Amino acid sequence: MSANKILQGDVRAAARLIRRIDDGDQRVFPELAELYHHSGRAYIVGFTGSPGVGKSTLVDRIVSKFREDGKTVGVLAVDPTSPFTGGAILGDRIRMQKHFLDEGVFIRSMATRGQFGGLTRSTADAIVVLDAMGKDVIIVETVGVGQDEVDIVHSAHTTLMVTVPGMGDDIQAIKAGLMEIGDIFVVNKADREGITKTLRELRSMLQMDDHRYRNTGWMPPVIPAIATQNQGIDEIYEGILEHRRHLLENQKEGLKKREESRAKNQIVDLLKETLVTRALKRLGGLETLDEVVEEIVARKKDPYTVSSELVTKLLGGAPG
Amino acid sequence: MSANKILQGDVRAAARLIRRIDDGDQRVFPELAELYHHSGRAYIVGFTGSPGVGKSTLVDRIVSKFREDGKTVGVLAVDPTSPFTGGAILGDRIRMQKHFLDEGVFIRSMATRGQFGGLTRSTADAIVVLDAMGKDVIIVETVGVGQDEVDIVHSAHTTLMVTVPGMGDDIQAIKAGLMEIGDIFVVNKADREGITKTLRELRSMLQMDDHRYRNTGWMPPVIPAIATQNQGIDEIYEGILEHRRHLLENQKEGLKKREESRAKNQIVDLLKETLVTRALKRLGGLETLDEVVEEIVARKKDPYTVSSELVTKLLGGAPG
Repeated sequence: MSANKILQGDVRAAARLIRRIDDGDQRVFPELAELYHHSGRAYIVGFTGSPGVGKSTLVDRIVSKFREDGKTVGVLAVDPTSPFTGGAILGDRIRMQKHFLDEGVFIRSMATRGQFGGLTRSTADAIVVLDAMGKDVIIVETVGVGQDEVDIVHSAHTTLMVTVPGMGDDIQAIKAGLMEIGDIFVVNKADREGITKTLRELRSMLQMDDHRYRNTGWMPPVIPAIATQNQGIDEIYEGILEHRRHLLENQKEGLKKREESRAKNQIVDLLKETLVTRALKRLGGLETLDEVVEEIVARKKDPYTVSSELVTKLLGGAPG
Repeated sequence: MSANKILQGDVRAAARLIRRIDDGDQRVFPELAELYHHSGRAYIVGFTGSPGVGKSTLVDRIVSKFREDGKTVGVLAVDPTSPFTGGAILGDRIRMQKHFLDEGVFIRSMATRGQFGGLTRSTADAIVVLDAMGKDVIIVETVGVGQDEVDIVHSAHTTLMVTVPGMGDDIQAIKAGLMEIGDIFVVNKADREGITKTLRELRSMLQMDDHRYRNTGWMPPVIPAIATQNQGIDEIYEGILEHRRHLLENQKEGLKKREESRAKNQIVDLLKETLVTRALKRLGGLETLDEVVEEIVARKKDPYTVSSELVTKLLGGAPG
């Protein structure tokens, strides 16, 4: 059991466990169960936005700010666009450079997904590890902007949406849905053309769609920044601390509610993965599906009837 | 049963069924089972890339090309960044304008995810509907660039990766993982600065990482385009047809293998969703989790032990 080592802050043990999580090894669950009871202390900050908006540099600067304040930091860089190889390792290497010798910073990439689990699930597990090993702050950075990424950052306490001036469709995407999950909006590369327009558009969108403000009293700030020149970093950092204060003070929509929704999602995701794994094991493994797959491709069978029959076989009772 | 109507090409019946799929209504499965036996004829083309690269315009142009060739076309615009409201409807409206009066084109957006299903799952279902209603070509366009999007376009026969000049991090993402799934690379907005460099970088990446070429004999073309000015569209269209010929001729890595992997993924996803739905129903619904969620947040319990116990209760046998 490496749980004790991790609770004592052993970096190697933590790295090993996170690697097994990323590999989709379900045998880590008992260890995670133990660690979970020692978790719940870390503050979780999520960064999301399209590739190319400069998230990594921004995260790097914010890590430095937390370090100046004496906080230990764990960083999870979630890169679902590299399901194969290379991305994660490359990412780690680039990111490590600056904070490499700082023992207060622990950086890991998540890239692979287990056979039946999702990145949302494995990221939740990795958060438990960093939390239990005593990191004060956990930063979760996603590379993509899809549904998985929304789910991943949704489990954070404070979520930052990062964009750049002049990304028309990006703003559309934010408008359509991401607006709801951003607690702080950052317009990076603010020396680019169109910064005034982008800031104005984002602010007016937030003011028009104000049901969240009316419900919670939180109006997300829109902060221009040039991360590479350290501009706007203090404001972003102050914004994170302010949002944290807001969550702690707000009974109705505050920290407790976010924690409950996080726990619920985690159970449902675990149930899904465990059920399908154990079910397929009982049926004789994934290979037993090969025969039926051929019949499906030939349109002699269909996946809907096959899966319904399998579920009835497993759980009994009438299909429904 | 609207299955017969859909098989006769009834647009309203198909639209209604796709809406129910998007709403996560599992009662559509028997109907989909029937339709599945009449599917398998359509050619599926996937478009992916970051927001802002001009995918919609490109899809619009390629739809016109297929129409000129007398093919009927179904378009699924998958927008996982709008899990809330607005996005899908807005998308439909914008996209419909040009092909609105063309009965040979059927356009729908997918945005919502069922409670326990994913967009990958519901998009697979919508493909079955369009296929069974007799569309020759189905175009699946994803708005994001995350894992869900990779999975979604992965079920296509031909996948186009769209980027624009000078998106450094975007290229990084492509390099890291998306390189593997792109059958054709399009650099849109080719009148922008940096086009030569981007084309050169992409081509040299593809040539360096040539194990796919060695396995399959397919070297993905890198095509510059200006979709708004109709430039490069003929080349892209020809590329799609050529890749289709390649898949039909290639025994080892061709169409059959893609069909099998698509069918397998669909069964596993259906199993997951059906198992967890039926499991939670038997446990008394999602609300019964509320009590245990409170204990988890208080760290009196942990999600790993709870879900393992629930699975054992449902499937019996030793936890494992």
